[in-house]
Amino acid sequence: MTKPKGVAVLGAGSWGTALALVLGDNGHDVRLWTHNPVQADLINTERKNERYLPGTELPSAITAYSDLGQAINGVDTVVFAVPTKAIREVAEKVESVSADPKTVVHVSKGIEPDTHLRISEILKELLTERSMHGLVVLSGPSHAEEVVLRHPTTVTAASTDLKSAEHVQDLFMNHNFRVYTNSDIIGVEIGGALKNIIALAAGITDGLGYGDNAKAALITRGLAEIARLGTTLGANPLTFSGLAGIGDLIVTCTSVHSRNWRAGNMLGKGKKLNEVLEEMGMVVEGVRTTKAAYQLAQKYEVTMPITQALHRVLFHDVNPKEAVDQLMSRMKTHEMEDLVNILGEQTEADEQ
Amino acid sequence: MTKPKGVAVLGAGSWGTALALVLGDNGHDVRLWTHNPVQADLINTERKNERYLPGTELPSAITAYSDLGQAINGVDTVVFAVPTKAIREVAEKVESVSADPKTVVHVSKGIEPDTHLRISEILKELLTERSMHGLVVLSGPSHAEEVVLRHPTTVTAASTDLKSAEHVQDLFMNHNFRVYTNSDIIGVEIGGALKNIIALAAGITDGLGYGDNAKAALITRGLAEIARLGTTLGANPLTFSGLAGIGDLIVTCTSVHSRNWRAGNMLGKGKKLNEVLEEMGMVVEGVRTTKAAYQLAQKYEVTMPITQALHRVLFHDVNPKEAVDQLMSRMKTHEMEDLVNILGEQTEADEQ
Repeated sequence: MTKPKGVAVLGAGSWGTALALVLGDNGHDVRLWTHNPVQADLINTERKNERYLPGTELPSAITAYSDLGQAINGVDTVVFAVPTKAIREVAEKVESVSADPKTVVHVSKGIEPDTHLRISEILKELLTERSMHGLVVLSGPSHAEEVVLRHPTTVTAASTDLKSAEHVQDLFMNHNFRVYTNSDIIGVEIGGALKNIIALAAGITDGLGYGDNAKAALITRGLAEIARLGTTLGANPLTFSGLAGIGDLIVTCTSVHSRNWRAGNMLGKGKKLNEVLEEMGMVVEGVRTTKAAYQLAQKYEVTMPITQALHRVLFHDVNPKEAVDQLMSRMKTHEMEDLVNILGEQTEADEQ
Repeated sequence: MTKPKGVAVLGAGSWGTALALVLGDNGHDVRLWTHNPVQADLINTERKNERYLPGTELPSAITAYSDLGQAINGVDTVVFAVPTKAIREVAEKVESVSADPKTVVHVSKGIEPDTHLRISEILKELLTERSMHGLVVLSGPSHAEEVVLRHPTTVTAASTDLKSAEHVQDLFMNHNFRVYTNSDIIGVEIGGALKNIIALAAGITDGLGYGDNAKAALITRGLAEIARLGTTLGANPLTFSGLAGIGDLIVTCTSVHSRNWRAGNMLGKGKKLNEVLEEMGMVVEGVRTTKAAYQLAQKYEVTMPITQALHRVLFHDVNPKEAVDQLMSRMKTHEMEDLVNILGEQTEADEQ
């Protein structure tokens, strides 16, 4: 491959900074954009991003910018690493200042409330051929805190255009950071967004003290309902058995790093949603996603028992214990009926 | 349903005792068999099984026996809850003392080394129509310690004969202990046995300090290779997306209760296998299963990178770090190719 001209990472939060570090490790010219000039100066002078990744030294290949035009012009790849709610604003700016088309990557996990658009759909709405010539989502089980320690991490680069996915794979791949390609952008985005719902619910069962058996059942059933909505929206069911499906779901439901799990945990221990959000002082993406997924489930008549139970807890003040107990005591069923509904008929199993 | 005549549970370890407790809670006449007369007396006089489930009070419906004939004659269901290596011996005794055919349930997780037989295959080999009229495996994410606390737990009852599976579902089902039926006995047994291999490997990556990203990737890839071998042996691929597949895998790889994870953890921290086994002082089922699965993978020419790496660590003294690093740095691939190989072609995902 020819060495790329450079990569701009938009957003200097923990994940954007960690990805810039991976790209820097790989010898690329990395431009890390933040809307905050003070943060940009600090990164350039101290070679650290203390607020988001305390203790991490940044490779010298990274230069921070607060001017978007300077950051993106001259590079051939732009990585969107801003919070879901900032995607529109940043995409509009990119479209207005971009001098030529680039490969666009996004790493956000959410669905836009009301419009129900996935992030790639928002980007396609706002970025024309003038600024974008390929669109890739990068997702998978990947806490930033572990990536900057160069701990082994694997992710999926998904695009309908394999060449763009392979370009992104080549940019990021190194000994510690392994990248698989995938053609199912819908499944990868739905898996990434909806896992936050199940993480909130897993936090609740843990907060109620229900233990590992209950959490494993919840994750298993959660994956099934994510796949059920995802396939209705056009995803390939196989994606949910991969890194952006079960992989990301496991890490988010079982890791102490997960913000959504922590919020659920407080709910399970009896706190109210507004108290939890106040105490955390940051966006809990799963709350917005629960609303969006609940609306989608209604629109497409998809059964999503966990999402629906969580919606009652978050927005209708239903007691978490009552909601979880109701979930657990649903009618006994034949396990396969559920799974066949989601994943389609398979070869029959014959006992030998 | 008509009230069953009674249930015998063979084996008074932690899982056998926990299952006897569930059956006792459901009002059944439960006969808990142990080969140790002293243990049987203690259970009957103290209503506890202090060695295996300290602090748990046993329902009065449970009576312990050390005479196998007394335990099984007069009941219509027998649950095998003995270690894998004791299955043959106990089954032969059951066949010799049984006066009439019963529904046989087993809850063991392993594959017999050398013969490569699943537990149900061993039972079918030894139990004739004289002693058995239906065979069911009960499996899923279910630590005994949590079941006796009446924490929510879900499991799968699998049989090629739906009526037998439903009989077992009816016996065990209650508010806290939820039972799904499944017709794929091969998949449920393979999932239950092979998860211990992945739990050992997950313990190793945790022992190496590699973190949650690496573990989630390992579990995801582990599920894929379990499914790959399982489908080759005739399992339904969907089973691996259910409770006895991903559910049991998650709980075993992420819970502090897991013996296999703990053994792996010590290996990752630099101990040798013989030191680990000595220190634990009990059977680590995953070690035997790694050997059996490794042989099966060779026999059927199935690629199982994690099993093969673990086999090198356990039996050829390969350094765990070296083995894991090799695993992580395999050639970059397209994620779907792998999954399609396992689960077959699915509907194409079309980006809208």
